[in-house]
Amino acid sequence: MDRSTRRGLLIILSSPSGAGKSTLARKLMDWDDTLSFSVSATTRAPRPGEQDAVDYRFVSEARFKAMVAENEMLEHAHVFGNFYGSPMAPVRDAIETGRDVLFDVDWQGAEQIKHSALRDHVLSVFVLPPSISELRRRLVNRGQDSAEVIHKRMQKSWDEISHWHGYDYVLINDELEVTFERLKTIITAERLRQAQQPGLVAFIRNLQAEFEELT
Amino acid sequence: MDRSTRRGLLIILSSPSGAGKSTLARKLMDWDDTLSFSVSATTRAPRPGEQDAVDYRFVSEARFKAMVAENEMLEHAHVFGNFYGSPMAPVRDAIETGRDVLFDVDWQGAEQIKHSALRDHVLSVFVLPPSISELRRRLVNRGQDSAEVIHKRMQKSWDEISHWHGYDYVLINDELEVTFERLKTIITAERLRQAQQPGLVAFIRNLQAEFEELT
Repeated sequence: MDRSTRRGLLIILSSPSGAGKSTLARKLMDWDDTLSFSVSATTRAPRPGEQDAVDYRFVSEARFKAMVAENEMLEHAHVFGNFYGSPMAPVRDAIETGRDVLFDVDWQGAEQIKHSALRDHVLSVFVLPPSISELRRRLVNRGQDSAEVIHKRMQKSWDEISHWHGYDYVLINDELEVTFERLKTIITAERLRQAQQPGLVAFIRNLQAEFEELT
Repeated sequence: MDRSTRRGLLIILSSPSGAGKSTLARKLMDWDDTLSFSVSATTRAPRPGEQDAVDYRFVSEARFKAMVAENEMLEHAHVFGNFYGSPMAPVRDAIETGRDVLFDVDWQGAEQIKHSALRDHVLSVFVLPPSISELRRRLVNRGQDSAEVIHKRMQKSWDEISHWHGYDYVLINDELEVTFERLKTIITAERLRQAQQPGLVAFIRNLQAEFEELT
């Protein structure tokens, strides 16, 4: 038996925008290049420069609806007239060959993934800002947005934060390096979970054969 | 709020004897001196040199049965006419003040603890030997036991191994230092779980107050 065989994890990273999630995701990909981002499918038209299968999988509405009907979406949502979703097949392939997949989804997407066919392999982490004033500062600094736009973003951020309770781990992102170390420790441990170690079944079978031979 | 507040874990370490569990437990206590072993209560008489509240809590049968009836035992068993059990109160005190408690129990004890009132704070780890021949070698080396005694121990070991499936983590103890590193990583991560971070509730409440003030 190859004891190093493991199953990959579906790693959900959620947070309000401005809490540091994108930076953490980038650092994780640098740390372990077997990690990949789940590429979403969408029915919206590609924008200039967007590549199919890299930025999104661009699909027709009929195709999208068929995938949902066939239970081939881990999660999906309808936003401003377009559909977005995470196709199951590439994620299943990845985790069966021991590669983790990162999901940058909001709490509604996280809920759906946690109730999907791959639910036993989900690790969900919520990243909190150290304070609301810090979050606001980061949202304001991003550009010359109007007070109204910032107000809307703050409302959306709070809606996201208010669902912190559904996550396995909740990290307060005070200092990026500390949070990153914690995230790495969590992923390293979760990879060792029994549910992630399919090779154990064969290992135990070998122990049993040896036991029967020796006693 | 004191963000460093955490709840302690009930860390169950199970394994057949000879798989390295005691050495791992000792190394864990050296690593973190806030870790303590759960002291079992028993109705058997103290042996020479055994201290009450250190080796065991020595109690009468009436007292033991009352504790079971009052749901004050996390787990208990009847072995060769004597009762043994893990009292809940000291464990509850420890975990409420953020100290982890180690349990050296077999799969039956583990099952009971995992269904106890403190089940949300249980971390269960099973330690496997690299092979049955290695396990046998370690059992034989222990002393001048008869073939029959060794045979019985092997049967008991296999009974224990055959319940590996009920544990959160299963570690193959090939190399002690590697296993110990893994165990530390697992404990460090599990301490960060949302269920172990009661301070989060107050932290989120503060965020909400700040949000309402700022918007």
